[in-house]
Amino acid sequence: MNPKTAAAVVAAAITLAPTAHADEGMWTLDNIPAAQLKSRYGFEATPEWLDHVRLSSVRFNDGGSGSFVSPDGLVLTNHHVALGQLQKVSSEKKDFVKDGFYARHREDELKCPDLELNQLVSMDNVTERVLSAIDRSMPDKEQNEQRKGAMAKIEKESTDQTGLRSDVIELYQGGEYWVYRYKKYTDIRLVMAPEQQAAFYGGDPDNFTFPRFDIDMAFFRVYEDGKPVHPKNFLKWSKAGAKENDLVFVTGHPGSTDRLRTVRQLEYQRDYYLPTFLRILNSRRRTFYAFSERGPEAARRAKDKIFGFENAIKAYTGELEGLKDPKLLGRLSQREKELRAALDKKPDLYKSYGKAWDRIAKAQNELIKRHEQVLYRRFFGSKLADFAKLIVLYVAEVEKPNDKRYEEFRESALESLNFRLFSPAPIYSDLEEYVIADILQEQLEILGAQDAHVKAALAGKSPKEVAHEIVSGTRLTDAAYRKELVKGGRTAVESATDPMIVWMRRLEGPYRELRKWYEDDIQAPESLEGNKIAKSRFALYGKSTYPDATFTLRLSYGRVAGYELGTTKIPAKTTFYGLYDRSASFDDQFPFNLPPLVAAARKKVDLTVPLNFVTTNDIIGGNSGSPVINRDGEYVGLIFDGNIQSLVWRYAYDDMQGRAVAVHSAGIVEALKRIYAMDALAAELTGR
Amino acid sequence: MNPKTAAAVVAAAITLAPTAHADEGMWTLDNIPAAQLKSRYGFEATPEWLDHVRLSSVRFNDGGSGSFVSPDGLVLTNHHVALGQLQKVSSEKKDFVKDGFYARHREDELKCPDLELNQLVSMDNVTERVLSAIDRSMPDKEQNEQRKGAMAKIEKESTDQTGLRSDVIELYQGGEYWVYRYKKYTDIRLVMAPEQQAAFYGGDPDNFTFPRFDIDMAFFRVYEDGKPVHPKNFLKWSKAGAKENDLVFVTGHPGSTDRLRTVRQLEYQRDYYLPTFLRILNSRRRTFYAFSERGPEAARRAKDKIFGFENAIKAYTGELEGLKDPKLLGRLSQREKELRAALDKKPDLYKSYGKAWDRIAKAQNELIKRHEQVLYRRFFGSKLADFAKLIVLYVAEVEKPNDKRYEEFRESALESLNFRLFSPAPIYSDLEEYVIADILQEQLEILGAQDAHVKAALAGKSPKEVAHEIVSGTRLTDAAYRKELVKGGRTAVESATDPMIVWMRRLEGPYRELRKWYEDDIQAPESLEGNKIAKSRFALYGKSTYPDATFTLRLSYGRVAGYELGTTKIPAKTTFYGLYDRSASFDDQFPFNLPPLVAAARKKVDLTVPLNFVTTNDIIGGNSGSPVINRDGEYVGLIFDGNIQSLVWRYAYDDMQGRAVAVHSAGIVEALKRIYAMDALAAELTGR
Repeated sequence: MNPKTAAAVVAAAITLAPTAHADEGMWTLDNIPAAQLKSRYGFEATPEWLDHVRLSSVRFNDGGSGSFVSPDGLVLTNHHVALGQLQKVSSEKKDFVKDGFYARHREDELKCPDLELNQLVSMDNVTERVLSAIDRSMPDKEQNEQRKGAMAKIEKESTDQTGLRSDVIELYQGGEYWVYRYKKYTDIRLVMAPEQQAAFYGGDPDNFTFPRFDIDMAFFRVYEDGKPVHPKNFLKWSKAGAKENDLVFVTGHPGSTDRLRTVRQLEYQRDYYLPTFLRILNSRRRTFYAFSERGPEAARRAKDKIFGFENAIKAYTGELEGLKDPKLLGRLSQREKELRAALDKKPDLYKSYGKAWDRIAKAQNELIKRHEQVLYRRFFGSKLADFAKLIVLYVAEVEKPNDKRYEEFRESALESLNFRLFSPAPIYSDLEEYVIADILQEQLEILGAQDAHVKAALAGKSPKEVAHEIVSGTRLTDAAYRKELVKGGRTAVESATDPMIVWMRRLEGPYRELRKWYEDDIQAPESLEGNKIAKSRFALYGKSTYPDATFTLRLSYGRVAGYELGTTKIPAKTTFYGLYDRSASFDDQFPFNLPPLVAAARKKVDLTVPLNFVTTNDIIGGNSGSPVINRDGEYVGLIFDGNIQSLVWRYAYDDMQGRAVAVHSAGIVEALKRIYAMDALAAELTGR
Repeated sequence: MNPKTAAAVVAAAITLAPTAHADEGMWTLDNIPAAQLKSRYGFEATPEWLDHVRLSSVRFNDGGSGSFVSPDGLVLTNHHVALGQLQKVSSEKKDFVKDGFYARHREDELKCPDLELNQLVSMDNVTERVLSAIDRSMPDKEQNEQRKGAMAKIEKESTDQTGLRSDVIELYQGGEYWVYRYKKYTDIRLVMAPEQQAAFYGGDPDNFTFPRFDIDMAFFRVYEDGKPVHPKNFLKWSKAGAKENDLVFVTGHPGSTDRLRTVRQLEYQRDYYLPTFLRILNSRRRTFYAFSERGPEAARRAKDKIFGFENAIKAYTGELEGLKDPKLLGRLSQREKELRAALDKKPDLYKSYGKAWDRIAKAQNELIKRHEQVLYRRFFGSKLADFAKLIVLYVAEVEKPNDKRYEEFRESALESLNFRLFSPAPIYSDLEEYVIADILQEQLEILGAQDAHVKAALAGKSPKEVAHEIVSGTRLTDAAYRKELVKGGRTAVESATDPMIVWMRRLEGPYRELRKWYEDDIQAPESLEGNKIAKSRFALYGKSTYPDATFTLRLSYGRVAGYELGTTKIPAKTTFYGLYDRSASFDDQFPFNLPPLVAAARKKVDLTVPLNFVTTNDIIGGNSGSPVINRDGEYVGLIFDGNIQSLVWRYAYDDMQGRAVAVHSAGIVEALKRIYAMDALAAELTGR
């Protein structure tokens, strides 16, 4: 394609999808923006290049991304993606979170209790099969069940045929359906993780901030049959690393975005969901901090959850601030008006899709009535309550036909669910009792004593009494007992006298009632009408854009670039000089204190080496651990965050100030060699 | 005073002056907030302490502050305060601005062409004398002349009696008048200045920014009779330097604030003055940049002016942004309403002062009609036009009685004026011609060919023709000729054929007409009615507050403190680590490049040494070069900037984020010793 044609295509694309910004998009690998890449960066992504980056990428099934970085199955991700596993293999005596973990020999590599990695092996478009199973003349509820039934059936067939984990995923709000087939790896061993204070340097204040100075990395090795795998595809380490203005790619698994939501849905997020959820998260953070006061071991036990809450609070605060910006909602409102005006001019399309916005608005009005129940009846932060609920539902759901089950209990999901549910990772009863008591107290205060869930949960007792009774008497902390219950099925669960199970069975009725209402009255119209909006966009604009994020593999492109902030400039990268400056500037006070090994390496480190850098790549939560890849398919960086200005990307991308934040490949090697004395690991990466 | 009483006094002060914030105030030294200092910081400022810091402080008469820092008359100020002098002693061959200046022996110290320092020796309240000279039954215009006459008379008497420079200054918008008497020093020699790139590291982007990494210092030595003076009072160097949360003081000469202005006056600033002046400054910056393109010598000649324009643009932009914040104007509007409501309840006070706001509003309405003439008829950036105007007005004004003259030609001002006017500092004709042509073109475009000033200035020719004619033919570049003209008086000027003088005499008529209108119709009511507002505040709140800044000595207090910005934290200080980080982060690209000596010292400097720090002290332009002083009256820092959030302090102080920015005393010594090899100078400072 000559440049003029390419430019014309870009111009057309811009006209067709009027809100697209430079470098925008979390593209599925079947539909990369080839014309834009060609014209804007002179880059042509060959099928081989795409296969290479796809097969080098892995999904961390507990929420994150990563990639193969050596021929011996080494996988690199973020420390904060590895944190759950690090916590699980730590104990009161060995705190790998605080001190780091350093396997200098293969035999020291430590098996993770419940980590599953997925590699996307193949993908097929099954849109027609799913849509043809839906009878549009039926009520919404039936259509939703038909859709789910079709998806479950395709998944089962694919798993049976290939032996691969097969997920049918919905893209473009139901505009497309694909089956994604994954190779699963479950023998994952921890190789190296730095001190958490090095990975999360600057703590909560610096989270979502740039300039930044974090060595947020962790190395795992993938084993099969007791031996390291030798992946055909892995990312070679770049010698030069990334420089300002370089074109770079990110592969990974962005969790979710809301870029195709209606304005009315965003208003619900702004006025109800986010404020309420933030209140809950803040309250829960206080709970865990209060628990931490009990002593150093209590603080250690609460640490990863506090990290999770603070991270979520900052992220949701950023999103809420973004939504409160009248310019943003104005822009989206304008886009919606234009789409609806275009529909108005095409009577056929209008007839099929034109009422979708009003129906979604109606569902939002319904949702508002019970949104506090939806959010406050959950037990965020309690592992035991989560397990108890899963077990009680599990034994009932698996008795149903596959396509009638809650989606988390479909055949295709069970193996991963079992892996998580039967994990030997420790559960701390003191923490559980404290947290459950606190949650019950909050539910009582917010939902009131007459709420069906609260009534069942308390049964006339105080929150503290209930929490003590169910936690102190339960055997659910034992993975074997959880397995036994699931294996025993409905009979075992119904006859169980374990107080936690008995308690959860009382909650089952109110839970199922609320969930049915939510799925029928909210989720079904949202999904089906959202499908119509997506289809109307297809009909008018073609497949010139990308779907919302769905924790499935995506490719984004962008460039290494600083930005202007206020009246000054933010550089494209930071160096080790800056890490030591920030520590000295705050007199080494927490959370700006240097961990021991970083402090000790002060004179050994080459301070000019780049540490972190920023790019315009379109990412979001779930992309943590994603590789940053150069034109040659080499490894140049490790995504670990977005800056605060990128949080609004949940709703709309903008590259004025929003940036993805990554650890620089040179910084990774420098830290391995000079701070952590992991020379062999560095050599395995760089092939030198 | 016991703590309880102190607290009660503070509470009362807050009630009386409802808008006071913690650490607010540019206090005159006769009225420091003793009770607040005692209760908030447990500090008692003795008369000896106050005399010590006053007599250690000096004013740089070309706009800035400084202080004596050694028993041998060493004065420390900012590089950017010294910049004008550095430029004047530089030449095409010796560029002290770029390369720095380093006198390692007394005999190398370089005499400045026209630098005058003032030390405030004594001060007396003359309010009654000035106010009793004003006949309130007369029209505003007459009252204004009576006021000016009284001030001129007091100044003359004081100068005659003491031999000291004596200025009558107006405080509280005419609420008080004081005579300030200064010892003048005019033999000032340059001792040391670093490379400008070290002093102004980060350039325009980092100006008004923190974190910051600037070695913005310059040393002078004061001579009398060819020998260094030995001041009785100088600030001893602190061994410890300033730490976070330390109480610190700043003495210096804040230029001007508008904290007592009416909302209507601020609206004029927001809607007319600042936008127009910013347009002019931006246009002039373009002019000087365009001239710089001619080559390195042209760039050198234009450099200090460009610095001045960019500095002003950023400062005024910050002020304008502050005024556009509806919260700020809302707060000030509320304060005004409360004051007026309080007046309404006291018929006596209302009768005297109640109409002031309406009269000021009327003057603002008048001002709007001619505000473009007021701003665009000036010749910002041309030294020749400035000198020509001064000479033409000078010879006419001095023929009038002292109290009838324009204030800049009163007897008391003439000596300093002569010093400036007869300076041997070079004037660059190429630059002058270029700039005057550009200004004339702008005047023609904005004011129109029919404007009286434009008509007189062009006399039918083109801007370029006029500029070439008057600059190429003038002898005003020669200080001796300027002296000769002034000495020759009106006869010499009226018979002069120098084209620049002839040209300026054509402009004199329109100038005097506009100035008369401005003084009579705008300045007089603003001043007199402002006086009433100040008096009404006095009557209601007492002298519990401080006057607007007037480029006279003030004391501010505050503490060393970081702050929160967005969702992260800004430290209270930076270190040399950060300087090298910022350079490396930007790949040493301008304006983040290290100057040669700083780059060479990379391995010698102790990177942990504090470089810059921030305090809550209430400062503004004119405070540049001010010392930061600890409780013991020792030198701990050198004010050189305010952050961008402090620019709104022109209208209202707020310590949420606004901060004064200073060079740390330890950073100064580290730079002198390890970067600039000025060990003797460092030893003179520290006394070691």
